[in-house]
Amino acid sequence: MFDEEHSADAVAASFAATPDPRLREILTALVRHAHAFVKDVGLTGEEWAAGIRFLTETGQHCDATRQEFILLSDVLGVSMLVETIGNRSVGGSTESTVEGPFHLVASPPRALGESIAVVADGEPCLVTGSVVDTGGRPVAGARIDVWQADADGFYDVQRPQTVPQQNLRGLFTADGDGRFWFRTIVPRFYPIPTDGPVGELLGATARHPYRAAHIHVEVSAPGVRTLTTHLFVDGSPYLDSDAVFGVKESLVRVFETTDDIALAERYQMPNPFRRVDFPIVVRPEGSSVGSG
Amino acid sequence: MFDEEHSADAVAASFAATPDPRLREILTALVRHAHAFVKDVGLTGEEWAAGIRFLTETGQHCDATRQEFILLSDVLGVSMLVETIGNRSVGGSTESTVEGPFHLVASPPRALGESIAVVADGEPCLVTGSVVDTGGRPVAGARIDVWQADADGFYDVQRPQTVPQQNLRGLFTADGDGRFWFRTIVPRFYPIPTDGPVGELLGATARHPYRAAHIHVEVSAPGVRTLTTHLFVDGSPYLDSDAVFGVKESLVRVFETTDDIALAERYQMPNPFRRVDFPIVVRPEGSSVGSG
Repeated sequence: MFDEEHSADAVAASFAATPDPRLREILTALVRHAHAFVKDVGLTGEEWAAGIRFLTETGQHCDATRQEFILLSDVLGVSMLVETIGNRSVGGSTESTVEGPFHLVASPPRALGESIAVVADGEPCLVTGSVVDTGGRPVAGARIDVWQADADGFYDVQRPQTVPQQNLRGLFTADGDGRFWFRTIVPRFYPIPTDGPVGELLGATARHPYRAAHIHVEVSAPGVRTLTTHLFVDGSPYLDSDAVFGVKESLVRVFETTDDIALAERYQMPNPFRRVDFPIVVRPEGSSVGSG
Repeated sequence: MFDEEHSADAVAASFAATPDPRLREILTALVRHAHAFVKDVGLTGEEWAAGIRFLTETGQHCDATRQEFILLSDVLGVSMLVETIGNRSVGGSTESTVEGPFHLVASPPRALGESIAVVADGEPCLVTGSVVDTGGRPVAGARIDVWQADADGFYDVQRPQTVPQQNLRGLFTADGDGRFWFRTIVPRFYPIPTDGPVGELLGATARHPYRAAHIHVEVSAPGVRTLTTHLFVDGSPYLDSDAVFGVKESLVRVFETTDDIALAERYQMPNPFRRVDFPIVVRPEGSSVGSG
């Protein structure tokens, strides 16, 4: 029967007959940590009730275009931890980060060099890069899916009335040397949604809701492990306090101001322009998870 | 910036400016346990996504008469742990247990000796008891609020079409010696609701949904700490595996089969009948939480 000292043992024992051993392992660990948490802080009945209310409201804020529980996981760093454990950098492979909630629509296929900024104003920017594997071999024909916020900090899906869908999104195919390039604008930092329970949590804890400026990049190719990452803008506010803990130092790159008429003409850029290069290293598919 | 080893530190640091020190303490502990849980089991992206779906559905199963997050907390033993920590037995005071979700309507005031079984069939049962404080002094005029399931395992609020509300509920006032007595039927074990995510969890883990048979008892009086507890029926199935871990040994009592014409006449019981006595010890109000 139940007593305070052995509470976690009693509950863990109730899961002993779980047919799936992995589910049993997860639930047993969950129960032990949940009970340890309650005991560590001496959670009161009022605090427990506040927690129940918070979780209930979080669930009730979820719908087809809003996932408040993912947002909660994000601001608690849990999403980023799961992503990092599942995709540890191995053999110099590019680090991953969270996919985020805005990969909602398929990016339109675009030719190399095309602009993804259909209507956005902002500082013109040239992105160049390459995809190689951990053996240094170019990945010819790799698919590079990119999406980003505009110069006001909004994704197209957040402004369905005023911005065409698929603005600032593009699906590119690397050339025979694994190289890719496209035109865009420099993205801006932006806030995660704050009109729900997670926003209340940030308010109550004096945390800001901003994400450092970034371009989402997802790289895939036959035989390689799909990489989900960001290209962060060096100098952006909030690099050190990204609301979802998505920043990794290796992913921050200088978007250089470039004054070069010949280069501008070659890539159809106005002069001067901003420029960033993102060399990407991907792992073979099925390569085992490394240790940090 | 974020790395796997220091993930919890990074997130805990983000809460450092929380104005309310207690909220900061709770969130810091929550983050440390949540991250340790993810690392302990090496939670995968797919498992994380399954968890997000489960929590979302749990929130969306909550409405005015259903609280699926409390049910989740119950089957993980968290409700019982919080209750136990907040109401440790001190100086021989009666142990507490969970209030449960069925104290939804106010119990009707009834005279001592009255039956709470307005329409229920079942084995007639006489409950007698007394309320004293930890100094052994009777608590004259204590209020004893009782509610229970019927002989089929349902509360009145679960059968609004067929059973009058306030069936098997009663609010009694102890006499000058702190004594109380009332008539009822022997309650039956019953399942918690299984038509939601928590039911799926129980199914996936081969756990049954039953609670051991009990009568809910809440005792209050000026100057004493309100006691929320159960009177469990000795011999009931599921005493050792109550779905919400609510059973404490000291709360299990024999409901004796009694064949005593004189006693039956005095309490207006049919003969033979079942009988249980529940001596209750309450703590002074504001008495500090003891250590086990």
